[in-house]
Amino acid sequence: MTSAQAPGIDAREVTQLADRLADAARGAILPYFRTTTLGTTSKLHTGFDPVTEADRAAESEMRAILSAERPADGILGEEFGEAPGSSGLTWVLDPIDGTRAFLCGAPTWGVLIALSGPEGPLYGVVDQPYTGERFRGGLGLAELEGPMGRRPLSVRRGLALGQATLATTFPEIGTEAERAAFGRVAAEVQLTRYGMDCYAYAMLAAGQIDLVIEAGLAPYDIHAPMAVIEAAGGIVTDWQGGPAHAGGRILAAADPALHRQAVALLAEA
Amino acid sequence: MTSAQAPGIDAREVTQLADRLADAARGAILPYFRTTTLGTTSKLHTGFDPVTEADRAAESEMRAILSAERPADGILGEEFGEAPGSSGLTWVLDPIDGTRAFLCGAPTWGVLIALSGPEGPLYGVVDQPYTGERFRGGLGLAELEGPMGRRPLSVRRGLALGQATLATTFPEIGTEAERAAFGRVAAEVQLTRYGMDCYAYAMLAAGQIDLVIEAGLAPYDIHAPMAVIEAAGGIVTDWQGGPAHAGGRILAAADPALHRQAVALLAEA
Repeated sequence: MTSAQAPGIDAREVTQLADRLADAARGAILPYFRTTTLGTTSKLHTGFDPVTEADRAAESEMRAILSAERPADGILGEEFGEAPGSSGLTWVLDPIDGTRAFLCGAPTWGVLIALSGPEGPLYGVVDQPYTGERFRGGLGLAELEGPMGRRPLSVRRGLALGQATLATTFPEIGTEAERAAFGRVAAEVQLTRYGMDCYAYAMLAAGQIDLVIEAGLAPYDIHAPMAVIEAAGGIVTDWQGGPAHAGGRILAAADPALHRQAVALLAEA
Repeated sequence: MTSAQAPGIDAREVTQLADRLADAARGAILPYFRTTTLGTTSKLHTGFDPVTEADRAAESEMRAILSAERPADGILGEEFGEAPGSSGLTWVLDPIDGTRAFLCGAPTWGVLIALSGPEGPLYGVVDQPYTGERFRGGLGLAELEGPMGRRPLSVRRGLALGQATLATTFPEIGTEAERAAFGRVAAEVQLTRYGMDCYAYAMLAAGQIDLVIEAGLAPYDIHAPMAVIEAAGGIVTDWQGGPAHAGGRILAAADPALHRQAVALLAEA
């Protein structure tokens, strides 16, 4: 579903409200960034999955704004789960995507905000509070607003696979089979970068990266990046080329030919 | 050699000149950052080692300033090699450390500037032009000046190895044996982050990261980070615990006990 197929959506209202949510998240999170006494808890018994006070504070603030301004819309958030709505629209929130980057002090984490219908995201924001960068996509927008002003977002096209740049959060995530599939694509590209979290999707939309391959994603990890990348002319699917908005194994590509080649390599036995 | 053992150095002159060099590099590099038509060349037949126009422009500007202001000092730069001096002091320059991050649009590359004597760096600056962050260390300074103002730099102490955060540019660099040694440390820590380039050293000085392990470094990769980390209370050596300023295999640690444990793990058969 694209913005043209989204009847009844007031684009100006939605984009302004998303900015307000992102501003609230910035204010809630930045006081916690680079404090070495940061408290973390582990959500799972296996693996390291820190949840910060900042994460919870930001999602609470965004939910309070949405409850007041858009009571008919549903909310799906990383920290506090799903609150069903009646409008057919859902705000999909990940207050800090890239908690590991956050804990290291690296500015590659982001606040993810999307407005989605049943077939996927209609509008998305990827916000980096520390650098002051806000990537917007959907409802007619594809732009970065940042420290150097506003500029349009547009993917890079026409590179061969051997010239392409690939990004991922691997080797930190995924099963052994998933890492092997990733490795088949990594063996063919010119440059592979690790550990960029949601920033890799933003850089694909900005024409700097050609492929992002990940696994084990939740819906709130991918809705906002998907909206931004599609608005910038890119493609986001699962590893088989099907819909991506349910999360799982994700492939984002700047160029349709690169996308086809990556799907083929990921599917090999 | 610490600043107290550096007779004849005018700390104010050196720190101001280093800022002027960093400002010049910012101005030379930023127009090239996130341009998708960036020209790259490969310095080596094996591997991918992009050199950008930005790299060359920044080092040329810094060398011109140094030739005018400090003609008796030597210069060692990544792009244009070594120019001997007569003062016993050498400016060690890497205009863009982390060219791969630069090409991906990620703000984890940096401009590295150090003033070094024969026994190692006396003063260093790690500058991130896009985020506007400047990390200074040595000659009595240990500070970050950035978008949120000035703050002192101080390493984090007292964490056990199992609570520590480790950063590296691996798996992209190093031999198989080096990657295995790195893996022995990675298996013991709580969190490992990849692909952070010189930003990892800056975050160690800022108390966010506990260990950085790398291999195959050149002197110009490590002099400035070493000065900043030592000024913030950290330790930078080779993998055996010896001097680090010649480059090669590098271990940086926030805490002396973590340093000892990492040296032991890296040395295992």
